[in-house]
Amino acid sequence: MQTRPHVDMSPTTGCRWTFVSGFVINCQMTGAGSAAKRNDRISPIEKMSLLVVGSIAYDTIETPLAKRENVLGGSAPFFAYAASFFCPVQMVGVVGADWLPEYTEMFQKQEVDTSGIEIVPDGKTFRWSGKYHENMNDRDTLDTQLNVLGTFQPKLPENFRRAQFVFLANGAPSTGLVALDQIQGADLVVADTMNLWINTTRQELDALMKRIDGLVINDSEAKMLTGEINTVAAAHKVLTMGPKFVIIKKGEHGAMFVSEYETYVVPAFPVENVIDPTGAGDTFAGGLMGYIASQQGSIDGETIKNALAYGTIVASFGIEGFSFDRYKEISREDIDIRCETFRKIASF
Amino acid sequence: MQTRPHVDMSPTTGCRWTFVSGFVINCQMTGAGSAAKRNDRISPIEKMSLLVVGSIAYDTIETPLAKRENVLGGSAPFFAYAASFFCPVQMVGVVGADWLPEYTEMFQKQEVDTSGIEIVPDGKTFRWSGKYHENMNDRDTLDTQLNVLGTFQPKLPENFRRAQFVFLANGAPSTGLVALDQIQGADLVVADTMNLWINTTRQELDALMKRIDGLVINDSEAKMLTGEINTVAAAHKVLTMGPKFVIIKKGEHGAMFVSEYETYVVPAFPVENVIDPTGAGDTFAGGLMGYIASQQGSIDGETIKNALAYGTIVASFGIEGFSFDRYKEISREDIDIRCETFRKIASF
Repeated sequence: MQTRPHVDMSPTTGCRWTFVSGFVINCQMTGAGSAAKRNDRISPIEKMSLLVVGSIAYDTIETPLAKRENVLGGSAPFFAYAASFFCPVQMVGVVGADWLPEYTEMFQKQEVDTSGIEIVPDGKTFRWSGKYHENMNDRDTLDTQLNVLGTFQPKLPENFRRAQFVFLANGAPSTGLVALDQIQGADLVVADTMNLWINTTRQELDALMKRIDGLVINDSEAKMLTGEINTVAAAHKVLTMGPKFVIIKKGEHGAMFVSEYETYVVPAFPVENVIDPTGAGDTFAGGLMGYIASQQGSIDGETIKNALAYGTIVASFGIEGFSFDRYKEISREDIDIRCETFRKIASF
Repeated sequence: MQTRPHVDMSPTTGCRWTFVSGFVINCQMTGAGSAAKRNDRISPIEKMSLLVVGSIAYDTIETPLAKRENVLGGSAPFFAYAASFFCPVQMVGVVGADWLPEYTEMFQKQEVDTSGIEIVPDGKTFRWSGKYHENMNDRDTLDTQLNVLGTFQPKLPENFRRAQFVFLANGAPSTGLVALDQIQGADLVVADTMNLWINTTRQELDALMKRIDGLVINDSEAKMLTGEINTVAAAHKVLTMGPKFVIIKKGEHGAMFVSEYETYVVPAFPVENVIDPTGAGDTFAGGLMGYIASQQGSIDGETIKNALAYGTIVASFGIEGFSFDRYKEISREDIDIRCETFRKIASF
């Protein structure tokens, strides 16, 4: 089993976190030695690669206003599409014989490498069905059919294994651990998790948390994970469990980044016409990680705040339509324009 | 009855809202003619005056960790103390024979003019008792004794009646209406309200909303007031009820300013050790209005965003102690320092 490459503070391996000016932690992507070595052995496209491992789903979604059956969903597709506005993405997941080639084409158009999508010929794609309450925040899960996801063991293509940035999107912690065992020398490994894994596979989740740099988690689930009542206290307690930073997602209330020495907060971008919030947490993470991956060099406070803002903006588009409908209509320029508006209404 | 001086867009009376550069509304405090006239007839101290009318209370507060009996509370004192870090304040309210002279002294030290506090010799001060839940956000009201507040008819001292900035802190809408009838030519009138008045005195509240420039209200109460499910939609609907802007308070999730042409959002300042959230909405409004009053001249987008930030920061101190405990320890400098930290962690 691979040891976690990012834990130690050595400048010669992986991500070097340093305390700067009493306020900012820098994650030096170009640490003395390691970067040179990396550049010797990998191509530029590999160097800025962002890998995501997660679920791929067909969702049936009911909101107070409409219903859609068997639309594309899942943590990996939402993350990958959102991140693809910023950098090339490598996606790993599993689908069944019912997988539509048009989705493969959709991702390939977005510079998402789909060679990590395993198609099980005699299987069915994971299905999730949910119904949103009037407030469009709370939802009930109506049905879950794990299908091929139930026995998913990610097998990473050779050229995915040296990805610089890794995101373990929402899924069983054991899946993330299997994926991590195949990854060498990533600079930044971030994972998402949720109540299901906190409640049912805590031991695997604890093991996973010891091998990641950052955890992305909902506020209520951060409280559940830590037993803390206050969100800030919960964030700090997560840091004692392994991750060097935690990003708390608060849905319509924004997000918070917390590390030992830093805290950053962003409000949500005000969206009046929410059509479908499914995947908003995944697209937030996709925009955030995609922005970070696109900023080669050190990750300082400004990069983190801009990443939080970009994640927020990418997610704000996604909830304006079902599934990937809204994303198909927009470009990186639309994201930049709305991010500039966000800066005007939120920065003081 | 006085007609509302701020509704019309005439440059010669009151607050002139103009649409600038597609984004910013300016409230011109120095409209052609009106400012000159005002300056002729009022002293400089009156000119920058900020008047608050509201309840004064003795609170008994129980949190998961502690209990305090009969400590100073009420919407007017919390607002006045918070605002007094920025400008002189005139406070109007009613108390009973049990009013402690030390509180009058405390406010006078803060440049709060207490001559508008009516003392009813044979009455008792309004009492409120509440118990906070584990999460420190939700609370149950255990007891309310209106006492002298039940028949309160505000009588404004002569030198209070030409205040430039007026805040009708949480209280019966009829109280606000009586106060407004005594006020001449204010540049900016803002009111706070809550579920009690929405449910029990809706007609008076509707009348009040037609005579104010801005409404400050909790997110859940904005939804209750408008019947909207989405906070942004609720904010826009409030604008059809009279106010030209609305400020939505979201507690630990920050605040939002919405007018016809503008939206501004701020997150909350992350506070880990919340001791007592009582009065946080009032101190938020106090910091916000105090900052605006201290910025003589036009109110542009930057002023509004800074006011939201200062309101947030003043409130963040207040909840770190019971009643006014924390405020007695801090100065304007402490507020400025934390506001600068806030800018660093929230502006991108």
